[in-house]
Amino acid sequence: MYTSKAELLQQLEEWELKHKELLEKEEDNEVILARQKIQSIKETLTSNKTKKIVAKVPKGMKDNLPREMAVREKVFKLIIEVFKRHGAVAIDTPVMELKEILVDKYGEESKLIYDVADQGGELCALRYDLTVPFARFVATHKIDNIKRYHIAKVYRRDQPAIERGRFREFYQCDFDIAGIYDPLLPDADCLRVVYEIMQSLELGDFIIKINHRKILNGLFEYCGVPAAQFRTICSSIDKLDKSSWEAVRKEMIEVKGIPACMADQIGEFINYRGWDYYKKTLKVDLILCTLGNTDTAKSGILEIKMLFDYLQCFGVMDRISFDLSLARGLDYYTGVIFETIFTDALVGSVAGGGRYDDLVGRFSKNGRKVPCVGVSIGVERIFTLMEAKLFKLDAEKIISRENETEVYVASTHGCVEERLKIVAELWDAGIKTEFMYKNQPKLLRQFQHCEDLRVPLCVIIGPAELEEGQIIIRDVFLRRDEKVNRSELTSRILAKLNKL
Amino acid sequence: MYTSKAELLQQLEEWELKHKELLEKEEDNEVILARQKIQSIKETLTSNKTKKIVAKVPKGMKDNLPREMAVREKVFKLIIEVFKRHGAVAIDTPVMELKEILVDKYGEESKLIYDVADQGGELCALRYDLTVPFARFVATHKIDNIKRYHIAKVYRRDQPAIERGRFREFYQCDFDIAGIYDPLLPDADCLRVVYEIMQSLELGDFIIKINHRKILNGLFEYCGVPAAQFRTICSSIDKLDKSSWEAVRKEMIEVKGIPACMADQIGEFINYRGWDYYKKTLKVDLILCTLGNTDTAKSGILEIKMLFDYLQCFGVMDRISFDLSLARGLDYYTGVIFETIFTDALVGSVAGGGRYDDLVGRFSKNGRKVPCVGVSIGVERIFTLMEAKLFKLDAEKIISRENETEVYVASTHGCVEERLKIVAELWDAGIKTEFMYKNQPKLLRQFQHCEDLRVPLCVIIGPAELEEGQIIIRDVFLRRDEKVNRSELTSRILAKLNKL
Repeated sequence: MYTSKAELLQQLEEWELKHKELLEKEEDNEVILARQKIQSIKETLTSNKTKKIVAKVPKGMKDNLPREMAVREKVFKLIIEVFKRHGAVAIDTPVMELKEILVDKYGEESKLIYDVADQGGELCALRYDLTVPFARFVATHKIDNIKRYHIAKVYRRDQPAIERGRFREFYQCDFDIAGIYDPLLPDADCLRVVYEIMQSLELGDFIIKINHRKILNGLFEYCGVPAAQFRTICSSIDKLDKSSWEAVRKEMIEVKGIPACMADQIGEFINYRGWDYYKKTLKVDLILCTLGNTDTAKSGILEIKMLFDYLQCFGVMDRISFDLSLARGLDYYTGVIFETIFTDALVGSVAGGGRYDDLVGRFSKNGRKVPCVGVSIGVERIFTLMEAKLFKLDAEKIISRENETEVYVASTHGCVEERLKIVAELWDAGIKTEFMYKNQPKLLRQFQHCEDLRVPLCVIIGPAELEEGQIIIRDVFLRRDEKVNRSELTSRILAKLNKL
Repeated sequence: MYTSKAELLQQLEEWELKHKELLEKEEDNEVILARQKIQSIKETLTSNKTKKIVAKVPKGMKDNLPREMAVREKVFKLIIEVFKRHGAVAIDTPVMELKEILVDKYGEESKLIYDVADQGGELCALRYDLTVPFARFVATHKIDNIKRYHIAKVYRRDQPAIERGRFREFYQCDFDIAGIYDPLLPDADCLRVVYEIMQSLELGDFIIKINHRKILNGLFEYCGVPAAQFRTICSSIDKLDKSSWEAVRKEMIEVKGIPACMADQIGEFINYRGWDYYKKTLKVDLILCTLGNTDTAKSGILEIKMLFDYLQCFGVMDRISFDLSLARGLDYYTGVIFETIFTDALVGSVAGGGRYDDLVGRFSKNGRKVPCVGVSIGVERIFTLMEAKLFKLDAEKIISRENETEVYVASTHGCVEERLKIVAELWDAGIKTEFMYKNQPKLLRQFQHCEDLRVPLCVIIGPAELEEGQIIIRDVFLRRDEKVNRSELTSRILAKLNKL
């Protein structure tokens, strides 16, 4: 069996520690055995039988190549623009949290948390999402209200399914509003943010599905589900976007143990989608008639109605769909919940969120509560869609570049020092400039490089022109040359770049 | 003794595993003991004796508040601008690498590597810097040449000294050029990048210290240091920026075990700074005379001379200082090395780097070599200096804001729906707009909020004006109101913002 060098070093460390302990306990026989083991590990280490290091990334993770990064940068820019338009500030938190902050927040999914090794000190784990760290942040800094965004990577020790774009490390992009305000106004702002982002991405039609935890709870109450089972039934319903109703029904009956008639009654409700696209009104009366007896559902329905009034003012109701089958897997939601899908793309939810009024209180001394509502943008799925779109444009010659170089400085006969001086002059003027790191580069290779990198302008230095105090500027796409005076070079280039 | 909930859960998990193992081995007595232990942990867990969670971050780490993030964003923007001006592309790598990638790269500092817990699977560790992951990246993707930048956090399990700005998690900001090129041209480009960044930050005078590993090695050879001790003597000299020459001399003699006369001879050289500020030339003759016998030093000196010729063309020699006492701690450098300091700020090096031609080869199959040169910008120290500068400006009322909101929509009598419609209209026009999440906010509170947040314009909706189809725009700083037609609102605001 092959053991990597890192593993051997780890074993060595462990055995040396053990050896020390045994020495202290004076267990002589064991000490001798430990010494033999240490000797043998050292021999394996020096015998060079260890395999050459394989230059790969950890399972379920990936590098981002320049071409992918260019797409990411584009998507982040669009999203941050919307966040800032709504007055959000940026914050940042450590990649790891104390383990006890994360424990008990993610229900069944807690087993996917990445622990940091216990190297003496506090028990820590990598963040699983950005919501719990945000709630901890609000508690730590005793913040009363904040509207913030946070773009960062999160970690889940999941079985990676790379072909389906599920990774162990991925970006999240969160926008949240914390503070005590009048009902539903922050929620409406949050949904308008989702709407603007989806519009600005230009990736096709989208629908924002909306539901309310109180309506769901009222529904369960009405159907006779015991209160202790609300959450687990919720998490069954949450699977409806991946599983059929039949599969979910079966799980509720056979795994969660509710009677078949109860499951069927739940089914009747959640297959009901209550937003009337044609009349642009919410057909809540039908639900009210049946669920109206439960106070829980009633207050949820009133909130949804008020929210929809605000969303109408914000001009986004054309994309809203009230959907009783939307449940959201996480435990901490207490009010409005929502998810967004692109109707023509089969990638699942690209933005999900809702109201969570109790989470900050769990971290605060004296249980000080700060109600929150927020959304997490599923940027990884958006990257995939955006890449597909841009690569399609690429094929049609509307091309995305990896860098932004504007001018390439070439020469016919080396002239390395003259080249460097011109490059420095262009940099001084803020122009994005490159040149070939060769003393005597071939002119054709320099041209080829320009065209490959799609640099729009090329400056050509020839000894003959230099003597006349002149220099050539070439339009790379049109392959058209123009001679200009050396002294006017920078201003001519700035003028040409302005026109591009 | 208090045990946190997270620790209890961890103990529980461990005991349950142990219990299972014992069951398989049929060690009945031990099984019973394990069961009792499990029972007791479960009781502690449910007895609610566990302490309330303290909402704090892990030791040596920190949150970044909006005000700090605004400074960071500003610094990153300046730096990225320079990177892009030099044609660099962005890349990204996972926060963790396989342990064996990091092992044996950082000399004495390897003990500071953060391990990820072994939860079954590969042994991983958080990245320690961005250079080794970059070399691994070049090998993984079989890249022949690339000029890339990478901005990301790195991790060191160091004894944190927060008051001196030393953290366990901090940003690095790296620019590297990989590829086979003519000598010193990429090195010169890299140094010009450092120069441009330091200029653009406007944080005072700076000096770029330059040395060459081959000159140092030649010097050691000349003084009679055994080759096997070059690196360890290098790492002693590297401490000269924090320790006195006397302390370093003592370490070389007493810890590293070289004779006193050898240490003194080294001292004579490294206290020599060879760049003549007045004549703007390198006084290498003196060194050449003495070190000229060693081929190693000679080739290093020739390279430094060529580099300085190029740097002269790039117009940056006014900031360059040849400094034999510069050693750089890391093992992997093979050529030019450099460090930058602000001459008036006592924060130490703010940019360090050099040439490392062998690192990629250590990760490549067939040992394919890709020579590299690069720089790491010490952004954390730069943030500290920039914050001090901006906060000073703040005190002088030239104020930095946390968000960028341009318009605040207020109303005299609630008018919540009308307010929302106007807000949506402004968002549609791309204007950064906020409003108060209240149904009946007091006008004075809204004005106060505007002034606190330094929003330049305020739109005021009053029922009387609304009836006349009019609306008020207030210049918040001048406290001057103007009535405009409702239909012209957006265009008037855009015009006013343009003037600001």
